[in-house]
Amino acid sequence: MDGVLAMRVSDIGEFGLIDLIKNDTLYNPSDVVVGIGDDTAVLKHPPEKLLLATTDMMIENVHFVVMPDNGEQIGYRAMAANVSDIASMGGFPTHAMISIGVRPEMEASYIEQVYNGLKKCSKLYGVNIVGGDTVSSPQNLVINVALLGVVEQENYLLRSGAKPGDIILVTGYLGDSRAGLELITNRVKVSKKTEEYLLKRHYYPTPRVKEIRAALKAAPINSADDISDGLGNEIHEIASASNVGAVIWFDSLPISDAVKEVADLTKKDLLDYVLFGGEDFEIVMTADPENAELIAKVIKDETGTEATIIGKIVDRSEGILLFRDNQYKKIEKKGYIHFKQK
Amino acid sequence: MDGVLAMRVSDIGEFGLIDLIKNDTLYNPSDVVVGIGDDTAVLKHPPEKLLLATTDMMIENVHFVVMPDNGEQIGYRAMAANVSDIASMGGFPTHAMISIGVRPEMEASYIEQVYNGLKKCSKLYGVNIVGGDTVSSPQNLVINVALLGVVEQENYLLRSGAKPGDIILVTGYLGDSRAGLELITNRVKVSKKTEEYLLKRHYYPTPRVKEIRAALKAAPINSADDISDGLGNEIHEIASASNVGAVIWFDSLPISDAVKEVADLTKKDLLDYVLFGGEDFEIVMTADPENAELIAKVIKDETGTEATIIGKIVDRSEGILLFRDNQYKKIEKKGYIHFKQK
Repeated sequence: MDGVLAMRVSDIGEFGLIDLIKNDTLYNPSDVVVGIGDDTAVLKHPPEKLLLATTDMMIENVHFVVMPDNGEQIGYRAMAANVSDIASMGGFPTHAMISIGVRPEMEASYIEQVYNGLKKCSKLYGVNIVGGDTVSSPQNLVINVALLGVVEQENYLLRSGAKPGDIILVTGYLGDSRAGLELITNRVKVSKKTEEYLLKRHYYPTPRVKEIRAALKAAPINSADDISDGLGNEIHEIASASNVGAVIWFDSLPISDAVKEVADLTKKDLLDYVLFGGEDFEIVMTADPENAELIAKVIKDETGTEATIIGKIVDRSEGILLFRDNQYKKIEKKGYIHFKQK
Repeated sequence: MDGVLAMRVSDIGEFGLIDLIKNDTLYNPSDVVVGIGDDTAVLKHPPEKLLLATTDMMIENVHFVVMPDNGEQIGYRAMAANVSDIASMGGFPTHAMISIGVRPEMEASYIEQVYNGLKKCSKLYGVNIVGGDTVSSPQNLVINVALLGVVEQENYLLRSGAKPGDIILVTGYLGDSRAGLELITNRVKVSKKTEEYLLKRHYYPTPRVKEIRAALKAAPINSADDISDGLGNEIHEIASASNVGAVIWFDSLPISDAVKEVADLTKKDLLDYVLFGGEDFEIVMTADPENAELIAKVIKDETGTEATIIGKIVDRSEGILLFRDNQYKKIEKKGYIHFKQK
């Protein structure tokens, strides 16, 4: 900002910061008795429904890097990751509490941008921001979102319901987010159209709330998980929770032309993006074989989002396999692991 | 540990850490359909009741210092602060989600101790730990607790219900936590008995869930707040939310002999402890004058905790005053302020 001294968080203080962010936080106010402003939020819970609750912590230089113009994107993703967890249970997100630990020397406008991103995603999914905490963090910006949701008793989905014979489906395209990250970190040069598509997919992922609800309307879903650490990792999660194995058919995996373009340029295996690229926030689910095609069709018809049959659940003893070039190969578990030593 | 190489978090990894802490987390399991282990917790909410939700973030070297043996205390206080927020709304705490950002080089046993403290407080108040997030934090240990609770429609309490004429009551004794902190930081020498009392009050504060429920049974409570930033600050909060003023009677303030002993030794004014000492987690409340004595009596009879009449609510125009030595003086608002410049 030429000629303007940027305001730092330490200039405006905690209350100045809260003033910057406290407005425009209720996007579905009918269930909010008291939002931000008292010791706790007071909320109405719809009778007969189950309550869902999830939380995610993101820390600067671990989960994201602070750059001059990326505050909105970081905020958006923090909320989207939690909304995706609620979607993977078959539910709707309702109310969020946001804790933020801020370096005092940060520009106040950056924190405002983070909240703009949190609010942008909240608005899109009808989430009320009903509370939070604003504290000082000496060295790293910290964002914690705790998100509530609701689901009908008969509709909640777990990772543990997959059975041998189930068909595996996935929404959307796999690896877009990782390919988008690669454009930023490795400065890979692609067409304008590819760049726009991948950056949008990376910065503004789309939690699949509508898609899972369409699937539930079509037929019973036996298990589900959202793809935050790559399809390969989530298949392991479902298999382990359900005590089953799985086969993924490489030729069936939904891969965008954009990801193919990036993999060509970087000379990496497509699998690095499609199986092990994190944060796509697509949903992987399993269903009885006779229902699988109907589910894919209803998701597409009702939401416009592709849903693809990509494999099947097998006995535990068969392991977790990828079928590619007429061969079966083990899928390793290699999602993002915290605290891993170099 | 003589001869034993301490295990660091980076040695055992994220999953090893989760294994250390995931057991013994449900102290009131009947409302938990799914706890830790899937994308979100799945919970039953009692019909007709309102849902309460609060969150608090604590960061190393801002809210606490890591010392070899204080992990349990830090965990306990993190949960207690949230339980106190639920108590101040008139409710019961139910389910917690805990996010923790851990320095990879920290000893795993320290983090286990933090969880032991979180669990100790959870068990005491019937709180289920139903989810969380475990991430790497490069420089500061971060603990975020998001806590849910329930309260009947007719019982929830706000800061905003105080009316001129109301009597102000407070539970317990004021300033004990600050005096306990002073023993640690300034190495003030007091009697063994005083030391034990104050350290317990500082490290293991008692959120007043039972006390506020006893009060609600006795008579209507018009407004309430928990004392996390000192009575002076919370009186300002109630006055501002209710658009009223207040007079606090110095001679009526409940001050333990232990606080008097420490104030004598440090030559500080008692008010530094009693009005401006934080984190007592007592409850300040207001009620119609004809009910005040009954409320104090029922709290004492049902819980054993003292409750004391300490002042009255007046018109906004009169301000927020302390009556001491036959004089009225303004009570300044000086709680803990984040981001304050030196």
